[in-house]
Amino acid sequence: MSPVGPDSQLGVARTLKALRARVDGWRSTGLTVGFVPTMGALHKGHLSLVRHAAKLSDRVVASIFVNPRQFAVNEDLATYPRNEGADLEMLGSAGCHLAWCPTPEEMYPTGYQTSVSVAEVAAGLESESRPHFFGGVATVVCKLLNQVRPTVAVFGEKDYQQLLVIKRMVRDLDMSVQIVGGETVREPDGLAMSSRNAYLTADERRIAGKLNGVLSDLAEKLEKGAPVESAMAEGRGLLETAGFDRIDYLETRWAADLGAVGLGSLETGAPARILAAVAVGRTRLIDNWPVERA
Amino acid sequence: MSPVGPDSQLGVARTLKALRARVDGWRSTGLTVGFVPTMGALHKGHLSLVRHAAKLSDRVVASIFVNPRQFAVNEDLATYPRNEGADLEMLGSAGCHLAWCPTPEEMYPTGYQTSVSVAEVAAGLESESRPHFFGGVATVVCKLLNQVRPTVAVFGEKDYQQLLVIKRMVRDLDMSVQIVGGETVREPDGLAMSSRNAYLTADERRIAGKLNGVLSDLAEKLEKGAPVESAMAEGRGLLETAGFDRIDYLETRWAADLGAVGLGSLETGAPARILAAVAVGRTRLIDNWPVERA
Repeated sequence: MSPVGPDSQLGVARTLKALRARVDGWRSTGLTVGFVPTMGALHKGHLSLVRHAAKLSDRVVASIFVNPRQFAVNEDLATYPRNEGADLEMLGSAGCHLAWCPTPEEMYPTGYQTSVSVAEVAAGLESESRPHFFGGVATVVCKLLNQVRPTVAVFGEKDYQQLLVIKRMVRDLDMSVQIVGGETVREPDGLAMSSRNAYLTADERRIAGKLNGVLSDLAEKLEKGAPVESAMAEGRGLLETAGFDRIDYLETRWAADLGAVGLGSLETGAPARILAAVAVGRTRLIDNWPVERA
Repeated sequence: MSPVGPDSQLGVARTLKALRARVDGWRSTGLTVGFVPTMGALHKGHLSLVRHAAKLSDRVVASIFVNPRQFAVNEDLATYPRNEGADLEMLGSAGCHLAWCPTPEEMYPTGYQTSVSVAEVAAGLESESRPHFFGGVATVVCKLLNQVRPTVAVFGEKDYQQLLVIKRMVRDLDMSVQIVGGETVREPDGLAMSSRNAYLTADERRIAGKLNGVLSDLAEKLEKGAPVESAMAEGRGLLETAGFDRIDYLETRWAADLGAVGLGSLETGAPARILAAVAVGRTRLIDNWPVERA
């Protein structure tokens, strides 16, 4: 028997009215609500976020919505993997209580015209390649948080810049929700789980698995005092040697706000983050690694 | 004895923590909360909004915050009238329960970087003269609504485009608050009450009083079937004759979304609105008037 259905804990809401009825019911009895927004095509990384949310709250809502506003016209909106049946089964098995599956028309009805944007922390890095991206993300997450009204929401650290953009938006707009980062889940060779990994051929998959090793090696070097500029240059060489076809960025930034760290050895006692975006074949991958010089 | 103090109903919150403590207390006992945002320099128009909010809810919060983000550098931020003592007395007398008086640092701390923008309904009219204005308004109102978390918020119809911008933002971002328009309060000669009326000299004040009469006359003509184009041309002539020094706009738009109405006679059975912004001396005045052809 499928875990989705009358015997399962998992409900599915397809209208804002149905979502609110369910969540307001929980809220009125004093239950706290955790939220995990997703674009579907779920993998163990998402389920880890759901389990994290379940530890922090009494009830968990996960949304499945492929947000058209965070794709540019040349990007993979049409081909982005969609498999709602499998997604719902996975959510049910991970302890999610309600899947919020709005249609694009429910999210952006005729006449829709409002957008939310975050400036400094959204600039550079991902925005260099995807200038439309964080505007789309901030807007849809603002909507989703207002729709679900959770106590806490969990976002993957794999999308580190996105996590900081959301934290900044929530603080700046005084939204009543706690934003928590969830650890990146990795394949045995260290490749960060991502829905877009499904695009990789076997050869590309082998190359993709080398990204995290380069980042962790660089972290070790920076922690030993290597200058940032030369470490990043060396890292770019290693990525090219590993077979990546393009490096969109490889940078070390302060972890709190993605501020610039300077070219020399990292200052001690402040958390930094190495962030990278690369392409292998037609697939773009991002990852990041913590680094702090003691 | 001043109505502000231990004997008064009116509390004053100067930090978000104090505001939330008070409002959450009300909310936890099932009381509904009405909200009226202001920039201070209160007059009978504001008090009418407070009384309106008091009819719709159990407790009323009014904010006093001169929002720097809705003024351009050449505008009157520094000289905008401020008199908190008088404002608090007036709020207390109108049945307000809590004044929310944040500092600019509380609203926009170091690192603040998020903005909310509304497109079509905020374009044209006020934005022609004040392109920065509605971005600043949408952002601060989004913050204020998230801070106060009211059941209902009342905005003056005098700022008609602003009212529609806020309604659109709240609907688009799925914010959990009802936005209600409050009727414009007028001086005996019909001049819409406005904090900026304080800038007018006696001569300018006499001219200012003629704006609403021009609008109401135009409404009558349009309701009798006069073509919009010729009525608006005639209206501009009347405003010039009345002594106004500049006409930023005089337009008839559909009342629901400020969409264009065409140049001929108004279609019947749909509410429209005549909107105007004029200057007399150095003071800019706006007003609007309902019109609907039966």
